[in-house]
Amino acid sequence: MTTDGDIRVGFIGLGIMGSAMAENCLQAGFPLTVYNRTLDKTKPLRQAGAAVADSPAELAEASDVVCVCVTASEDVLSVVLDAENAVISGVRPGAIVVDHSTVAPSVAGRCTKELAGKQAGFLDAPVSGGDVGAREGTLSIMVGGDREHFDRSLPVLEAMGKTITHCGGHGAGYTVKLCNQICGGLHLIAAAEAIRLAEASGVDLSAMLKAVSSGAAGSWMLSNLAPKMVGGDYRPGFFVDYQLKDLHLAAQAAHELSVPLPGAALAETVFRCASAQGHGRDGTQAVYEAIRRLGNG
Amino acid sequence: MTTDGDIRVGFIGLGIMGSAMAENCLQAGFPLTVYNRTLDKTKPLRQAGAAVADSPAELAEASDVVCVCVTASEDVLSVVLDAENAVISGVRPGAIVVDHSTVAPSVAGRCTKELAGKQAGFLDAPVSGGDVGAREGTLSIMVGGDREHFDRSLPVLEAMGKTITHCGGHGAGYTVKLCNQICGGLHLIAAAEAIRLAEASGVDLSAMLKAVSSGAAGSWMLSNLAPKMVGGDYRPGFFVDYQLKDLHLAAQAAHELSVPLPGAALAETVFRCASAQGHGRDGTQAVYEAIRRLGNG
Repeated sequence: MTTDGDIRVGFIGLGIMGSAMAENCLQAGFPLTVYNRTLDKTKPLRQAGAAVADSPAELAEASDVVCVCVTASEDVLSVVLDAENAVISGVRPGAIVVDHSTVAPSVAGRCTKELAGKQAGFLDAPVSGGDVGAREGTLSIMVGGDREHFDRSLPVLEAMGKTITHCGGHGAGYTVKLCNQICGGLHLIAAAEAIRLAEASGVDLSAMLKAVSSGAAGSWMLSNLAPKMVGGDYRPGFFVDYQLKDLHLAAQAAHELSVPLPGAALAETVFRCASAQGHGRDGTQAVYEAIRRLGNG
Repeated sequence: MTTDGDIRVGFIGLGIMGSAMAENCLQAGFPLTVYNRTLDKTKPLRQAGAAVADSPAELAEASDVVCVCVTASEDVLSVVLDAENAVISGVRPGAIVVDHSTVAPSVAGRCTKELAGKQAGFLDAPVSGGDVGAREGTLSIMVGGDREHFDRSLPVLEAMGKTITHCGGHGAGYTVKLCNQICGGLHLIAAAEAIRLAEASGVDLSAMLKAVSSGAAGSWMLSNLAPKMVGGDYRPGFFVDYQLKDLHLAAQAAHELSVPLPGAALAETVFRCASAQGHGRDGTQAVYEAIRRLGNG
């Protein structure tokens, strides 16, 4: 954690991730202004000392670094550029808008270009590590954009994450997050299929997980979410529907680049099955149910 | 490492894995007899103090624990049961045959039954961790079979591995190894696709790997073999053709059990592409070439 009282931070989008990340900015000593579409989510942060803005524009007027954490590409474009009282209509020269959402890489180009017209910067900076990482300030943050903007925003990013990586120019952060979601999605399916094979063979599942996790076939998902598959604990860390959204973004990016990605396509399909079967608001480990439902399990 | 001079160990199959595992048995103080189809591979172990047997039967006559490490189901059945001078024709009452090969789970049933007729035990005990794990004695060993046989063999297994897991009755070790190979195979494909997307997007590949490895989408493969994909280093730790063989065993087991495993099926297909394209004797990281060849990369 770092303290830099000179940087005034704004935070737009106080969902599970955003509210914990904003809280960590406050704890690190940054003067904080927050905005959320539904006002009641601002209450805990207001009580902790944050100012509450009436619009993204008003928030931007009061901020040197404007963090955004919303859901879809349209949400980012709306709150930063297109809506009445969007960030761009209040943003200060020299300010930097940092988007933590997971959206299409092309969003970064438009935001960077239009904010540059106001002498403001833009970084795409999606995060990995779930609600636990957001609360504990241990997120992995993947950043695309201008190096100088990255350096200036770093004290704020360091209040929210542990591994902060500058991945390249605008869009590189969004792209790396999609790479991350391809890996995470396939690792979950691998874990689900390993459990199905072991289960159908009558093998002790916890022994299987212990043996596989400890070797060259181990993954974070196998260590952390596979035991929840075995236990039927589908409480969400990260929603099936969000993983599906991200895998669909990866498929769109792959389409635009003419890059065939058969594993990512399979992962998207299996997560779409899980969602269609009613698991959209369960945790991603519920993809195990989609694998099970393919057969007689 | 443990020392137990009372257990006489035999080791059949001195490939890359077997020779290193046998060496560790010798280092741990076990009197060792070895056998290999091609005699010259026994030389380094003979020089280090091992006896060399003329046949599996002769080796079995001199051993309390008979370790086997060969390639295919037919090889195990031949050397343990079916060949002239197979292990079974020399095995001592009370001895235990421990097979470290990765083969079909059904092999364990036949070996267990036929060896029981000679008052000998059988454990299926395939390993994970590659040539490095074999040399350093840090393998993960997944064991199926009788608990009492497991306990008696444990000092020998501890000379070769670090994580030794009793997974259930006969065949459970083989099955868990197939679960392991499903995970490892899919993790390699995930890494390859993440690299392809990042590469086509112009993103710095080492930054991508660093960011993804450190979060919830991390895996052993991503940390250890993905950098070799990026560097074009296809020197084998584990052959593409062996991974393909193991994924095919998983597909056969899934077929016999009527368990649909779409990810494992995709992994088998992609590894078959890599093999068909001439990468069979490259390391498994060469599956990246099969993903690349799907498009224009």
